[in-house]
Amino acid sequence: MKILSISEILKIKNIKKFKNKNIIIIGWIKTQRHSKIGISFIDINDGSCINNIQIIIKKNIKNYSKIIKLTSGCSIKIKGLIIKNKKKKNYEINANHIKILGNIKNPKKYPLSPKYHSLEFLRKISHLRPRTTLFGAITRIRNTFIFNLHKYLQKKKFLLINTPIITSLDTEGHSKMFVVKYNNNNFFNKKSYLSVSGQLNLESYVCSLSKVYNIGPIFRAENSNTKKHLSEFWMLETELAFCKLKEIINLSKNILSYCSKKILKNNKKDIYHLMNLNNLNNINHIKNIIKKKFIEIDYYEIINILKKEKIFKKNNIKWGINISTEYEKFLTEKYFKSALIIKNYPKNIKPFYMKINKDKKTVSCIDIIFPNIGEIIGGSLRENKINKLDKNIKRNKLNKEKYNWYRDLRKYGTIPHGGFGLGIERFIMYITKIKNIRDVIPFPKYPNYSNF
Amino acid sequence: MKILSISEILKIKNIKKFKNKNIIIIGWIKTQRHSKIGISFIDINDGSCINNIQIIIKKNIKNYSKIIKLTSGCSIKIKGLIIKNKKKKNYEINANHIKILGNIKNPKKYPLSPKYHSLEFLRKISHLRPRTTLFGAITRIRNTFIFNLHKYLQKKKFLLINTPIITSLDTEGHSKMFVVKYNNNNFFNKKSYLSVSGQLNLESYVCSLSKVYNIGPIFRAENSNTKKHLSEFWMLETELAFCKLKEIINLSKNILSYCSKKILKNNKKDIYHLMNLNNLNNINHIKNIIKKKFIEIDYYEIINILKKEKIFKKNNIKWGINISTEYEKFLTEKYFKSALIIKNYPKNIKPFYMKINKDKKTVSCIDIIFPNIGEIIGGSLRENKINKLDKNIKRNKLNKEKYNWYRDLRKYGTIPHGGFGLGIERFIMYITKIKNIRDVIPFPKYPNYSNF
Repeated sequence: MKILSISEILKIKNIKKFKNKNIIIIGWIKTQRHSKIGISFIDINDGSCINNIQIIIKKNIKNYSKIIKLTSGCSIKIKGLIIKNKKKKNYEINANHIKILGNIKNPKKYPLSPKYHSLEFLRKISHLRPRTTLFGAITRIRNTFIFNLHKYLQKKKFLLINTPIITSLDTEGHSKMFVVKYNNNNFFNKKSYLSVSGQLNLESYVCSLSKVYNIGPIFRAENSNTKKHLSEFWMLETELAFCKLKEIINLSKNILSYCSKKILKNNKKDIYHLMNLNNLNNINHIKNIIKKKFIEIDYYEIINILKKEKIFKKNNIKWGINISTEYEKFLTEKYFKSALIIKNYPKNIKPFYMKINKDKKTVSCIDIIFPNIGEIIGGSLRENKINKLDKNIKRNKLNKEKYNWYRDLRKYGTIPHGGFGLGIERFIMYITKIKNIRDVIPFPKYPNYSNF
Repeated sequence: MKILSISEILKIKNIKKFKNKNIIIIGWIKTQRHSKIGISFIDINDGSCINNIQIIIKKNIKNYSKIIKLTSGCSIKIKGLIIKNKKKKNYEINANHIKILGNIKNPKKYPLSPKYHSLEFLRKISHLRPRTTLFGAITRIRNTFIFNLHKYLQKKKFLLINTPIITSLDTEGHSKMFVVKYNNNNFFNKKSYLSVSGQLNLESYVCSLSKVYNIGPIFRAENSNTKKHLSEFWMLETELAFCKLKEIINLSKNILSYCSKKILKNNKKDIYHLMNLNNLNNINHIKNIIKKKFIEIDYYEIINILKKEKIFKKNNIKWGINISTEYEKFLTEKYFKSALIIKNYPKNIKPFYMKINKDKKTVSCIDIIFPNIGEIIGGSLRENKINKLDKNIKRNKLNKEKYNWYRDLRKYGTIPHGGFGLGIERFIMYITKIKNIRDVIPFPKYPNYSNF
């Protein structure tokens, strides 16, 4: 007898095939209701989709007295017949046999009672929160997103390169990095860190394989206790040979559009559940991405817009400043009401590896800023001329020796190239409307918290 | 004008479509030959496949004098016509225009001369080795393997769960783990490590989502300077609810078979290149995996076989010992000449989380051992009863408190489940016949070496 998942059962088109055929289904109890006349209705879920399925249990089942004592969270194995509930237009299971797999001895001590739990509380029980409808939905969306990032890039012939986690180099130049040790010794014979980006390593592969990417974990030792920062998060990084900034922009837009479409197709019910929790009756924020509604604008134009706004202190806004969270919010949520692609930032506020434009003041780069979230993507062309790269290294006060291997890529058969990094969790926040980044990664790590 | 990759050009079926149509192709020079009558033949590669394509350049091209000075490794952009070489039955490019993108000023200093380089030497220039034919091939095979692990599991409705890298828990019980710090402070407020396995975290998700997996980096701080160990490597981990050991075995066999088939389909030329380097004229080792030729055998039977062998010291072999590398080699390469699935090891040589069999002496587990490589997969059913798990924790002298969250999974709605871990690099070694694990990962990390 085959075990069927709830998702498989709900997709059955011809119910006649299952007439008088017992199937097995296994899951965890969500809710239960026992009628006085000796019929129990138990809703179970198995994680295969957001839907529960109702199990109908009559009192002639031999362990009925035990079954009616089961509570939310208990796991059971059901043998029974699939029947159609014509009123509700869905399937139910008429149970013939029930095996109790996992009981909960003291339901009052079970941290996940059927009552409402705050997200803060659930974070402390990250090992149990996937049992909630909410975290089931987030997990399935995250799964669809990451797999389709792979799928899209594979279709476009990008090669997956697993860049190193332990490294002796700082990609961004001046990052706060975690140190890796063993028994207080330098196991690696030199100071070693957790990587803040695999970009430089990807660049070494793009200089012979033309199209490469990685999806991997990234670490920042910043003491940021915000809703948008984690100490450990996942990033897609791409590198593309022989490209112009326009191709980086197009690749960014296309991949977000493709994945959003797939999420909407594969996880429609998960999405609508999340929208309901936010009292939203539309999914325009996702449709906009699918339709590639981004406003492309230059950094200097952004500065001119901000200068004209009376709500900001005029003196603070001048060419050369960082576009702070406050300004990002204003631009994406009030002024443009759209995701923005901001191009050509001043070179002094961007890392050493970016290609300087002909104006000698700006770099050929983009930040993609989303409403309610902030930066989702950062990308650029990379400086591919050795003399210019060396100037950038000097200007950024970096140790040239340390970047010797990276410099080799420019000394030997250099090519124009570029790429972008995409914050996986940030985009899932945007799609799901979840407000704290700690809730869109299975086991969040942040200052003072490395449990699990 | 479109940039075409070599792979795209070689797949052209109807060459007439490209008659008189200039295309652009970009790549790195592999070899060059200049005839006295003023024609140059330059082979370039762009990483899209193992094949080079020949560019024919006549002396009437304006920068011809510079072109004939180019050396192996320089990058060029070619505009030209695709023509068919009827003798060689392949395509070539008749160049109309060539742009030199990246020169090599001092070819004598370029570490990758066209001569033979040892793998040891290439490891020291891990940033340049993807430019060799060998590392191009390994990279494309690795890409096909990992993507198809995802693809197979997604087809089977497994959900991807990114388990944490930074952790406060030791999965295996007594592993050597790297410590993560920031500025010598405990950034996380408790001792934190790099994970040796995401299994326990996956188990928390399998206990509501039924089928889960991760592909991620794993760390071991062991001072092992062998050809089969890395300090940082990649692992597939799966967890499957409601399963028996037989299903773990089948899933292992099916996924290796599926991926091997895909590698043979997508990377045939890469594979044959690697076989040539090993003077091998067959790919039976891959075909055996595709055909799922594994010998399934119990641990106690293995001990009985070893006892009968005169080459081993009899006294050393008794029920309860670890099956050492020496024995593994004998079994897979001499006695069975096959990959082995060894089942039901003694509980005392396996971790605390494994399910003890009815005999109370062995655990319900498998090790899959490959000829020339050793262990590729380790899997087991997990102990799902809280009282038995607690006994195992005690017997293994572990701190019960530390495993409280893991114990919760057994206290609340427990289910029978199990899974396996697959060493990504080990399997790539098997497929490619590469003998040192440091050569099948982009940037290897091992004791005293964390460069790049």
